[in-house]
Amino acid sequence: MNVSLFMTPLETRPALLSGAAAVVIDALRMTSTSATAFANGCAALYAVREVEEARALRASVPDALLGGERHGVLIEGFDLDNSPLSFSRARVAGRRLIMTTTNGTWAITGVAAARRVLLGAFVNASAVARALLDERSVVIQCAGTDDRLSLEDVLAGGAIVERLLALGAQAHLDDAAQAALTLWRAQGSDLHAALRDTHHYNVMLRGGQRADLDFCLRTDVLDAVPVRGADGWFTAQ
Amino acid sequence: MNVSLFMTPLETRPALLSGAAAVVIDALRMTSTSATAFANGCAALYAVREVEEARALRASVPDALLGGERHGVLIEGFDLDNSPLSFSRARVAGRRLIMTTTNGTWAITGVAAARRVLLGAFVNASAVARALLDERSVVIQCAGTDDRLSLEDVLAGGAIVERLLALGAQAHLDDAAQAALTLWRAQGSDLHAALRDTHHYNVMLRGGQRADLDFCLRTDVLDAVPVRGADGWFTAQ
Repeated sequence: MNVSLFMTPLETRPALLSGAAAVVIDALRMTSTSATAFANGCAALYAVREVEEARALRASVPDALLGGERHGVLIEGFDLDNSPLSFSRARVAGRRLIMTTTNGTWAITGVAAARRVLLGAFVNASAVARALLDERSVVIQCAGTDDRLSLEDVLAGGAIVERLLALGAQAHLDDAAQAALTLWRAQGSDLHAALRDTHHYNVMLRGGQRADLDFCLRTDVLDAVPVRGADGWFTAQ
Repeated sequence: MNVSLFMTPLETRPALLSGAAAVVIDALRMTSTSATAFANGCAALYAVREVEEARALRASVPDALLGGERHGVLIEGFDLDNSPLSFSRARVAGRRLIMTTTNGTWAITGVAAARRVLLGAFVNASAVARALLDERSVVIQCAGTDDRLSLEDVLAGGAIVERLLALGAQAHLDDAAQAALTLWRAQGSDLHAALRDTHHYNVMLRGGQRADLDFCLRTDVLDAVPVRGADGWFTAQ
């Protein structure tokens, strides 16, 4: 298995995705939230880049809920923001979700050329690794923030790499995947400490989102792995 | 001091460079070689992207030596390749050099909008840090390899960050600079071990360039810091 890791969406090129399984990571918060939605019984999830695309898609799927954020908060007229705490069983069980966020859904659409697309985070790292074991080519796509590296996404990528190796994968890691693994091994045991001085962590702290940080910075608490289907909708692996 | 680190040239944007001192790192080998050239008395160095640009510039500076590589080896008609071992005092003392390499000189021209441009590597990490101490904004631009992350460049960036902190700089590190520092602290004590499974290190090993690796993977052995002047030529700080 070849494992490549892209630290930002800038590195994504279709040729690098050909035949690969791509794991998109936006640990704070979109992919953590997506795994949570499926753990709570959501039926399917569709990721779009633009708010207007989300509204247009809902016009053809009127029972769907609209979720996501701009500038970290609820979008006008949307049903749900981007907090995993909002995606409770009561809200999402059996429902379709249409999501648009500032970085996560951009990263997802950026890897559209991959053969498979999965959504990963700390919360489902081991489950993602298990879902990748038979792959020959894995691309870990970190969402980052505005085309800059976000340490939490790289650390979550390192966690998935570490789990793959622990499961016995014979993996050849590119330089970036090796770096992510080293970072995870150095810092994964205390994610709040690792992220204390990072950009997005502090944006969320200032925004009163400590509960979301506590939720998202737990490892291996969910088994749900969102996987893109042939129709573009994600369902739970 | 704000310290940002770009893991590949893809991240470079003029707005991020405005007012900043940019340190370009192509540890294997271009910036190591440049520091060596100045340590051995070279008069000035100019970095260009294309082989034809190098030849054209020499037409107006006929006493200059042409150096660099394509596919890791000497370019036809050039005086010097890209090995630091080629840039001996006997060859370069008092001479002007015009350089073009696959990744390093591209990264250098990519940060042209910065207020200052310096060339850094393991060999001159502490000297680079000393040259940056009065800056308010530092950008560490890793050259990478073909727009992919090269671990050696990130580690060298981490070494420079670590030296800045050791010198007492009150530095705010962006996520990528924090990651580089963590990697350096985890792996800097044995660079050959850190790079054993990385891409460019193995390309060089297969190419019979073990002596260059041994040369470039030493830390703080040179005091020379190439700094771009107003005319675009680098001279020694």
